[in-house]
Amino acid sequence: MTMTPVDQASGQDSGAESEFDRGTAVTRRGTEPSVYDAELDAGWRIGSGINGGLLLALAGRALSRHLGDGTGHMDPVSVSGYYLSASRPGPAEVHTATVRTGRTLSTGTASLLQRREDGTPVERLRVLASYGDLAAADGDVRTSATPPEMPPPDQCIGTEHAPPAFLDQADLLRRLDLRLDPASVGWALGQPSGQGRIQGWLRLPDGRRPDPLMLLLAVDALPPVTFDLGLFGWTPTVELTAHVRARPVPGWLRVVHSTRNLAGGFLEEDAEVWDESGRLVAQSRQLAVVPRPA
Amino acid sequence: MTMTPVDQASGQDSGAESEFDRGTAVTRRGTEPSVYDAELDAGWRIGSGINGGLLLALAGRALSRHLGDGTGHMDPVSVSGYYLSASRPGPAEVHTATVRTGRTLSTGTASLLQRREDGTPVERLRVLASYGDLAAADGDVRTSATPPEMPPPDQCIGTEHAPPAFLDQADLLRRLDLRLDPASVGWALGQPSGQGRIQGWLRLPDGRRPDPLMLLLAVDALPPVTFDLGLFGWTPTVELTAHVRARPVPGWLRVVHSTRNLAGGFLEEDAEVWDESGRLVAQSRQLAVVPRPA
Repeated sequence: MTMTPVDQASGQDSGAESEFDRGTAVTRRGTEPSVYDAELDAGWRIGSGINGGLLLALAGRALSRHLGDGTGHMDPVSVSGYYLSASRPGPAEVHTATVRTGRTLSTGTASLLQRREDGTPVERLRVLASYGDLAAADGDVRTSATPPEMPPPDQCIGTEHAPPAFLDQADLLRRLDLRLDPASVGWALGQPSGQGRIQGWLRLPDGRRPDPLMLLLAVDALPPVTFDLGLFGWTPTVELTAHVRARPVPGWLRVVHSTRNLAGGFLEEDAEVWDESGRLVAQSRQLAVVPRPA
Repeated sequence: MTMTPVDQASGQDSGAESEFDRGTAVTRRGTEPSVYDAELDAGWRIGSGINGGLLLALAGRALSRHLGDGTGHMDPVSVSGYYLSASRPGPAEVHTATVRTGRTLSTGTASLLQRREDGTPVERLRVLASYGDLAAADGDVRTSATPPEMPPPDQCIGTEHAPPAFLDQADLLRRLDLRLDPASVGWALGQPSGQGRIQGWLRLPDGRRPDPLMLLLAVDALPPVTFDLGLFGWTPTVELTAHVRARPVPGWLRVVHSTRNLAGGFLEEDAEVWDESGRLVAQSRQLAVVPRPA
């Protein structure tokens, strides 16, 4: 696994040149301005599909353009994605619509679809979301939430140490600089903790700074928390809602995934993302399908 | 405040005669079978609007009919509601649409709207949701979540003891048999705990049994958790996603509302609902607007 070294440049925004920005780029159609064209890059694969967080960020970027135009509501505040079918590398379209334009929030929908060879559309992801301007947010903070404790990044475990069988199916990991807390990786050694918790440090290896759109990827970028329960195999997402609570400062993100209730064939997977200033910048929960025993 | 006594009848389902079923009744239009007519009853008011949980249950009932027809996917599994404007007592319409029909889940949207005098529609709530059959759910349960500890209902505090100024604006509470944990009601005595947690027992006073639709009300039925932070005033919901994890058994529900992060003008409010068998039957999170100081 190639890992681009990042030093003090971690705060440097390489803008549209970054892999993340290329992977979530959308082009507005001149003839149909609510439709955006995109290309799903195989480098963001997990299993045979494209990572759900990347798709959410891509649809989220189209909605940012669509809702932000004229309102300044460019930042995702609450984004709910319902995953309908597995995406494949190749062309995709995002069809957006405004539901309501308000003073502080604008709400809209996005439908990410791909086409069969005969042109029939197949919807992959439906999004309902509210956008605002997080820079305008009131500064008052009263929080009882505290950042997770974990060793510094250089004492954590890079994903190059993940089982090869997993890496082979997770091209996505080559696009992330992810360092897992050693206490979270027992599953890789055949000793899952059983606690249902995986946490680590995350940044983009090319130095692209975190921002609200990148947080939509961050909430779904770690290995499935079911690994820590000794359940391998994929956990398809039914629904994921992310709340972006603040714009992150440059630097590392700390990400915690946890689950408390695996029952009836589903589990919830909660994610919290903290920025380098120690602020809780995103919270999410997804409902996922429990993997079947191999 | 009138509280109908409920004895052993608490497990009795009075069906369509119950206040909850009347309050969430929808009538399918013969001419437009994806549109449902409803009447928002003033008895479900909180402040000047209708309770968000009741609206979610009402839209959820229309979606249950729309998506369940022919699929058997009658149970809400994941329901995301985006609240767009305050509802008023009076006529309402729910416009439904199917997004995808799958083998185990069907996904659809619902738009709850009311009309101005001139007939202009004003959307109140947009819902995106997946439905399934919770009776068909796999029985495997691995949970680290435990029900909240609280005194039995007869040692808890009925809402008839709430401050009259609050009760006057919360007709909703007359429709609920809600008994708050004494540790959760310091705010009513001018001594909020500051922990951001309110919990209690909940059932419908007319003996109507809990079911998945009723859980959509239960996740938004308690006083705002901000009261426990000493912040009074209303906390309008931006977004609420509920996951129904199992069909509840008859009897009391235990409901916990909590928040950890109030920041940037928003807070999250998490709800957990446990049935009388001790099973976690629903989890929800909402993003709400922090009340302004009075």
